[in-house]
Amino acid sequence: MTQLEHARAGDITPAMHQVAETEKVDVELLRTRVAEGTVVIPLNNSHLNINPVGIGEGLLIKVNANIGTSGDEVDLQEELSKLQAATDAKADTIMDLSTGGDTRSVLEAIMKRSPVPVGTVPIYQAAVEAVRGQGGIIHMTPDLIFAAVEEHARKGVDFMTIHAGVTVAALERLRSQGRITDIVSRGGAFLATWMLYHKAENPFYEGFDRLLSVASEHDITLSLGDGLRPGSLADATDRAQIQELLTLGELAQRAWNAGVQVMIEGPGHVPLDQVEAQVVLQKKLCGGAPFYVLGPLVTDIAAGHDHIACAIGGAVAGMAGADFLCYVTPSEHLRLPSVEDVREGVIAARIAAHAADIARGRKDAIDKDKEMSRARKNLDWERQISLSIDPSKAREYRSGSKPSSNDVCTMCGEFCAIKIVREYFGS
Amino acid sequence: MTQLEHARAGDITPAMHQVAETEKVDVELLRTRVAEGTVVIPLNNSHLNINPVGIGEGLLIKVNANIGTSGDEVDLQEELSKLQAATDAKADTIMDLSTGGDTRSVLEAIMKRSPVPVGTVPIYQAAVEAVRGQGGIIHMTPDLIFAAVEEHARKGVDFMTIHAGVTVAALERLRSQGRITDIVSRGGAFLATWMLYHKAENPFYEGFDRLLSVASEHDITLSLGDGLRPGSLADATDRAQIQELLTLGELAQRAWNAGVQVMIEGPGHVPLDQVEAQVVLQKKLCGGAPFYVLGPLVTDIAAGHDHIACAIGGAVAGMAGADFLCYVTPSEHLRLPSVEDVREGVIAARIAAHAADIARGRKDAIDKDKEMSRARKNLDWERQISLSIDPSKAREYRSGSKPSSNDVCTMCGEFCAIKIVREYFGS
Repeated sequence: MTQLEHARAGDITPAMHQVAETEKVDVELLRTRVAEGTVVIPLNNSHLNINPVGIGEGLLIKVNANIGTSGDEVDLQEELSKLQAATDAKADTIMDLSTGGDTRSVLEAIMKRSPVPVGTVPIYQAAVEAVRGQGGIIHMTPDLIFAAVEEHARKGVDFMTIHAGVTVAALERLRSQGRITDIVSRGGAFLATWMLYHKAENPFYEGFDRLLSVASEHDITLSLGDGLRPGSLADATDRAQIQELLTLGELAQRAWNAGVQVMIEGPGHVPLDQVEAQVVLQKKLCGGAPFYVLGPLVTDIAAGHDHIACAIGGAVAGMAGADFLCYVTPSEHLRLPSVEDVREGVIAARIAAHAADIARGRKDAIDKDKEMSRARKNLDWERQISLSIDPSKAREYRSGSKPSSNDVCTMCGEFCAIKIVREYFGS
Repeated sequence: MTQLEHARAGDITPAMHQVAETEKVDVELLRTRVAEGTVVIPLNNSHLNINPVGIGEGLLIKVNANIGTSGDEVDLQEELSKLQAATDAKADTIMDLSTGGDTRSVLEAIMKRSPVPVGTVPIYQAAVEAVRGQGGIIHMTPDLIFAAVEEHARKGVDFMTIHAGVTVAALERLRSQGRITDIVSRGGAFLATWMLYHKAENPFYEGFDRLLSVASEHDITLSLGDGLRPGSLADATDRAQIQELLTLGELAQRAWNAGVQVMIEGPGHVPLDQVEAQVVLQKKLCGGAPFYVLGPLVTDIAAGHDHIACAIGGAVAGMAGADFLCYVTPSEHLRLPSVEDVREGVIAARIAAHAADIARGRKDAIDKDKEMSRARKNLDWERQISLSIDPSKAREYRSGSKPSSNDVCTMCGEFCAIKIVREYFGS
């Protein structure tokens, strides 16, 4: 039985207990939300060495970090260092997006070491095999694709991105409308290419019941991917994107009917004034399923600093109701991220998630900031460092610029407003 | 005559012509807005070596970078390097907030070299002199304070932060209400300390006409500072802050009556869900005067990454109508910023400003992103780098991670979605 089926049956699983305790929410309320599908607990029933994580209504916003090799950068140790950096920076989940080298070994090594839930995009493996074996993505077959899904499920993967909404109808809508950047999702591009070449429907859409049976057996949480997500602000919230979202809403309902946990993936590149509308639309069209957004990036021109464009969009999406933020690193659009890029990406997304948690009135998030502010008022620097989102960086900055008086910092020195006010107001 | 008086008289000044040309707006419309006070052009009438910058309604959102020495860090060359870094990163204005060493020489050197308008906070000079000469801030006198204003005006400073809203009544409201971080504005703390010790009204409030006469003579744009701005999320939008804002609205009206250009400074630390309300309130209470926000920071715990907390708040404030963003660097709350911190701070604020310009429908901002997206679709890497907000960083990232095929990057390599779609869709 899946977490969803247990919840419907009224059973509170150990995972629900752990999530409720971590989140300080009532476990019965949590169970109701899992039963209704507004909360997911991505946890493959054979994946035993991790702490379960809840994503969705009433829970803290979670952050995912993508790692994994590419054809140009294959180094298992480097990817394991990224895993370490991401979890040290407190990423809640990891996705292994490897497409280079021995992708099976990479996934196995990550599964073995990750302390957090792991997601994958199985179509990548099918595409890599079709290219290596037969020389092209068009040589994928539905069986090859489902074999990848089953293999990842058996390996213990907790959630999988499945681009089942890239249908013939959606591609036709995309073509008739036109776009600047057409398709920027790798999974979306692989499937669209295959579909157009073979004049066939998306194998994930046609074989959705087959997918559900694998997901149900292993309790895989389906992350219904937005293969037609906008890759530029100009393409956001267009007919192709919304057509796909309509389909994803229907597929989420089918997943629930089959007792399978499901969340919905979202964009992408979105102008800041459309971010809230995107979230409202997803929640409404997809029956309140958790929303997992990639960014969104609120400008196309921030290459080198896209983690900042992502933090802006992620915070506003989170405030509007998004539940799960996929990080973007400073190297997005330019290269495979380095270990340091991974760290910076996680921290930026966590700032966005935390700002949104506060905006949503989450008391434990609000209390953290109050504690920091009290430490500031008390000129208690050790406490300020330990309460900061990235204590090692805060310590490095402070220790690299020593004030002559220990109770202030070198920005204002003796003219520290807080120190002056404390001395004269006696507060 | 000030720019405001010229505008009212129906004269289009050379500065208005230049601003209208840079911004691609109708010069007569711009003149109307300067006349109404919804646009300011901070330009001391003796400051001849800069390009004028317009701030306010219908114009691109501008970014300010604070530089300057502190008691703990005095190095003129370092501050001039920060000036260079800030303007290289395209800061629109600079503020010299020096409080350490020979602050006069620092200001003179900055005035001589800055290609952009320069702002100061003259109360800092009065405080430094009172501490050095008499051993305490309480030894400031109204004459010493106004002497600093006049000296800066004669040196050609274009805009000045004046904390005239820290009145006895506002301090009483702050005290009766209570706060976590009381006063975090240096100028606010200096004035409050002086006022409480001497049981006297704020010299800037009492002597506002004297201030207006200096401002009018040199065409100083007054930036009415928020000395009681919240220094923690918990203190945001409280009675002390709003009391001060009411006063600033009245003082803005008095400035306009005297033909003096004026803008209003805003917070500070503000929860994301209160940012829009802060802007709406300022615009309404201050008759549409341009709004100059410091951040706002949407969490208190991002020390080491506060430029990101600031970018989130600044983008949302900008979308809601803020006109001018003061950058925050990664070293905020920890140390005086380094040259690299200044660069990072300006870029982060520019990303926020640009995202907000797009959200406000500014066509030239939208077109920039379209151009970038076309370059992406064309896999034109040189063009992508030159269109990015920070070409040097984008180039460094790309050149540090060479793909085996020149038309992709190392993130996806041969599995680049855009490349695949171009090949198969032929678009």
